[in-house]
Amino acid sequence: MNQINRVAIVGGTHGNEFTGVYLIKKFNQFPYLIERPSFETLTLLGNPKAFEENRRYIDNDLNRCFKSQDLLDPTLCGYEQMRAKAIHQILGPKGKSQVDVILDLHTTTANMGLSIMLENQHPFSLQLAAYLTSMNPLIKVSWTQPNQESALLRSLCELGFVIEVGPVAQGVLNADLFAKTEKLVYVMLDYIEGYNKGLVPQTHSTLTLYEYVGTLDYPRNEKGEIQAMIHQQLQFRDYEPLNPGEPIFLTFDGKEIAYEGESTVYPVFINEAAYYEKGIAMCLTKKQQVLLRD
Amino acid sequence: MNQINRVAIVGGTHGNEFTGVYLIKKFNQFPYLIERPSFETLTLLGNPKAFEENRRYIDNDLNRCFKSQDLLDPTLCGYEQMRAKAIHQILGPKGKSQVDVILDLHTTTANMGLSIMLENQHPFSLQLAAYLTSMNPLIKVSWTQPNQESALLRSLCELGFVIEVGPVAQGVLNADLFAKTEKLVYVMLDYIEGYNKGLVPQTHSTLTLYEYVGTLDYPRNEKGEIQAMIHQQLQFRDYEPLNPGEPIFLTFDGKEIAYEGESTVYPVFINEAAYYEKGIAMCLTKKQQVLLRD
Repeated sequence: MNQINRVAIVGGTHGNEFTGVYLIKKFNQFPYLIERPSFETLTLLGNPKAFEENRRYIDNDLNRCFKSQDLLDPTLCGYEQMRAKAIHQILGPKGKSQVDVILDLHTTTANMGLSIMLENQHPFSLQLAAYLTSMNPLIKVSWTQPNQESALLRSLCELGFVIEVGPVAQGVLNADLFAKTEKLVYVMLDYIEGYNKGLVPQTHSTLTLYEYVGTLDYPRNEKGEIQAMIHQQLQFRDYEPLNPGEPIFLTFDGKEIAYEGESTVYPVFINEAAYYEKGIAMCLTKKQQVLLRD
Repeated sequence: MNQINRVAIVGGTHGNEFTGVYLIKKFNQFPYLIERPSFETLTLLGNPKAFEENRRYIDNDLNRCFKSQDLLDPTLCGYEQMRAKAIHQILGPKGKSQVDVILDLHTTTANMGLSIMLENQHPFSLQLAAYLTSMNPLIKVSWTQPNQESALLRSLCELGFVIEVGPVAQGVLNADLFAKTEKLVYVMLDYIEGYNKGLVPQTHSTLTLYEYVGTLDYPRNEKGEIQAMIHQQLQFRDYEPLNPGEPIFLTFDGKEIAYEGESTVYPVFINEAAYYEKGIAMCLTKKQQVLLRD
């Protein structure tokens, strides 16, 4: 792989996820914090209007607007659809992007600690992830096997990373998680600097990777209204094993609903506020050990 | 005081505070849960449109729309201003209300556990609050000395209670806090039933009351942008003593800001998401022991 010449840090792709927004403001005020000798770092506030209104989005979830066909469709003119086209002009186009790395900073109401979500299994991304988890075992890494083109902002370049930090409520800053996210960004920038200088040892032979295998929706009635909550035994237990037969939901009238899968899974995004409307009570992953190539 | 004949339970006065909304749905589905022999219980979903859109409010905070002059002002026609007038028709008018008790169910992103907020120091309210705290010492009771007419929904009747439960993110159900809120409602209804039957012993001679004495805003720049976060030593420490000189904020560039008051206070609503726009980083209270009249 060539040198990494340009890195984009994006915050506020969702307007009510404040950590990324205020980190971008901080980096703009103190640019030396993200400057490194061997590459250029740019910042981008993803959805300024949604931030102003303290909402995830105005018309559509911006982080679902980056499919090539949508970016090229002149009839799509919701606020986020147009904003995605503008961001595509700045960072894209896909396959020929103007930046080599994207760090897209998110928060979640789920207890996901510091999570890194990879766009693909590019060797550089796996090595970086392995380095991060070796530095801090609380960092978790996940990946989705693509079955169609990604609609996420990070997909604008090959080395796209989503950083999800939680639990934190929407519209709130948590000083502890803010500091941890900030530190993670610096460690990633330092790693890229080391990579460019040939100083990164490829010593990490395995990586624990959580691969997305599906989602579970809340039980709903015929009107689509949810009929149960995340069971309190599962709440805040992201990345912990969930076995068949263990409770996942509690109905409003007090009945437990058990997980009916056939094998152990590792749920993430448990009780994420923004996913109620998407029909997702939690995402399911399988825990894998990945052998890294030298 | 006369018998209590009608009690209103209100949920979803703020559309993204789900606990109250889903409790109202549950009570409507299983009305026997809130029926008691000696009085009628009605339910009300405060802001259905805001709930549909998963927002606190559409045009204005509904829970600031209940001043008499606003309720009578025909030129106010925002969604919540009109909704307040409709609720005023159902529950009010102030001073001659159609219900004797209002329980208005809220949630907060602050760590306020189970909090009861009184409209006034009516002996019945104080006795009920004293009973609740004697049953569960984790229940906290607060009160605001009025300096002007209340704009809150609970002010539609004399025995108005706001129940604030947290920490829980907006747009999320937490099964544990849902169950605790539900149980608290039943205990309050049972107390009213006992009161009507003359079975409530007035044995509680003192009550710990947190009286509101002011608010603190985030440090802001000339554009109004916040420049600091709640200090991590204060985060989630609602109802704990805060002494002069102790840190309350951490600026984005890492400087601690100390509390500059002259005496110990007990902050509440620390880092409530909905209060960023109101210029409130926390509310300050003084802890008092109130002697109850027999």
